Amino acid sequence: VGGSRNTETREEFFEALDGVCSEVACVRPTAVNLSWAVERVKRVAREAADAARVRGERADLEDLAEAILNEAIMMIDEDNRVCRAMGEHGAILIPEGASVLTHCNAGALATAGWGTALAALYIAKEQGKEFKVWVDETRPLLQGSRLTAFELMEAGIDVTVICDNMAASLMGRGEIDLVILGADRVAANGDVCNKIGTYGLACLAKMHGIPFFVACPTSTLDLSLASGAEIPIEERNPREVTHGFGRQTAPCGVGVYNPAFDVTPHHLVSAIITERGIVRPPYGPGLAAIMRD
Amino acid sequence: VGGSRNTETREEFFEALDGVCSEVACVRPTAVNLSWAVERVKRVAREAADAARVRGERADLEDLAEAILNEAIMMIDEDNRVCRAMGEHGAILIPEGASVLTHCNAGALATAGWGTALAALYIAKEQGKEFKVWVDETRPLLQGSRLTAFELMEAGIDVTVICDNMAASLMGRGEIDLVILGADRVAANGDVCNKIGTYGLACLAKMHGIPFFVACPTSTLDLSLASGAEIPIEERNPREVTHGFGRQTAPCGVGVYNPAFDVTPHHLVSAIITERGIVRPPYGPGLAAIMRD
Repeated sequence: VGGSRNTETREEFFEALDGVCSEVACVRPTAVNLSWAVERVKRVAREAADAARVRGERADLEDLAEAILNEAIMMIDEDNRVCRAMGEHGAILIPEGASVLTHCNAGALATAGWGTALAALYIAKEQGKEFKVWVDETRPLLQGSRLTAFELMEAGIDVTVICDNMAASLMGRGEIDLVILGADRVAANGDVCNKIGTYGLACLAKMHGIPFFVACPTSTLDLSLASGAEIPIEERNPREVTHGFGRQTAPCGVGVYNPAFDVTPHHLVSAIITERGIVRPPYGPGLAAIMRD
Repeated sequence: VGGSRNTETREEFFEALDGVCSEVACVRPTAVNLSWAVERVKRVAREAADAARVRGERADLEDLAEAILNEAIMMIDEDNRVCRAMGEHGAILIPEGASVLTHCNAGALATAGWGTALAALYIAKEQGKEFKVWVDETRPLLQGSRLTAFELMEAGIDVTVICDNMAASLMGRGEIDLVILGADRVAANGDVCNKIGTYGLACLAKMHGIPFFVACPTSTLDLSLASGAEIPIEERNPREVTHGFGRQTAPCGVGVYNPAFDVTPHHLVSAIITERGIVRPPYGPGLAAIMRD
């Protein structure tokens, strides 16, 4: 921070740090683990400065930067362990021969480690299980076809891309055994905020009697929210819909609604997989207990 | 036919006609009204030839071509009347102030007249009703954003494009009052084969207590099929999914499943709107009766 922003005083340093931190957190306000991570970094910097003051010294900016870097590296190590632990818990839910549906990207390209939902698949594969994965392309930004399909292919997992509107048809024909995906924020009652399209899949899974699993680290649990109704839904640029991938595909000036996320009520969620274990309904007590652990 | 294919004998003429007719029918085998239309044209040509034979003449190829042309023009006139009649019946189901969801294109760009589902909206507009339409973009070919949004804007109707995976979220927030869309084929029991994504919308509508209407001419009813299970699902080129916008959006060699249609079981359909009236469940007797009319 100090280097790239050319700060010279402690005040300038902390101002620049605040700026960078809000930039990171605001990229995706819905993803509560971004705020969680930047708050951790800010706390470490403050603590290093306070410790120097207690020793009667003025904190060297280089020392502050090093404290931040060390914390960030520690968080990467932690994330690797957290992803692996989530994967180990999640893999229990992937039966041999399963046909799995996932949505968006909840994998190695979205985390420092192996991902959240996809970690379960990577561990299941490591355990020698055979299974098949259907990936929703995930309009408008196609994280499913661009990222998830790529990751799973690289890992040697059997993967088939579909358009989002094809999942129901597969479910109706008994081709999907379970749905597993990630989360951007989970409220105290187990309501799940995740990539747009998640709620529809949860409804369809319920209607077809298909288990619907959400995988996320405890840093994604936001127990300060009683329910998902308190989560504002971010809207994105209409051009993501009308000019997907460099080409106009809708009339000029047409109205567009482009929410980036939706909220899935807890009663549609079969289980929430965290690094500390699998939480089943009722989520209120289950999530509170896992956060106390 | 005679002209463009340069036929000289009656045999050549009928061979060329058969070729053109199967070409048209095979563009979209699921759409049974295409077969219905080409069969009508073939019958008219045969009848004209037979009538000439009865008169002891050899049918002039120009006369055959004219008989076909006349029949085609008559079918256009009929389609205009059929669309208008469907629209008048359908408009009854569009309440003042309604928020309507449609999928794919079931409008003037898909018929000779004003369309099937969209005809209901055009007539409702003509009747002075105010309402709002949400249009699924309809991956992979985006008929919703490319065609339906264009048509409705041109007609001065309030239209908003969404990605297919956003419809559930709108339903969950009470933003959709009814769904209306077209059909490619309807079986004797009321099962509806239509553009991929229809089944998912029907499930979601059922779960949210939203009426789900299908509009189609009686030429789309295929009472020779007991149920939709007998309709084979056409699969299309994987490149529609992986290279949809003139740009590659999925890894090379990835598996793709690209069904063009799905089948919605009759118990999810609130009503079927035809030019002869609105059919409500139970569809078996209702559809049989309307075909006898």
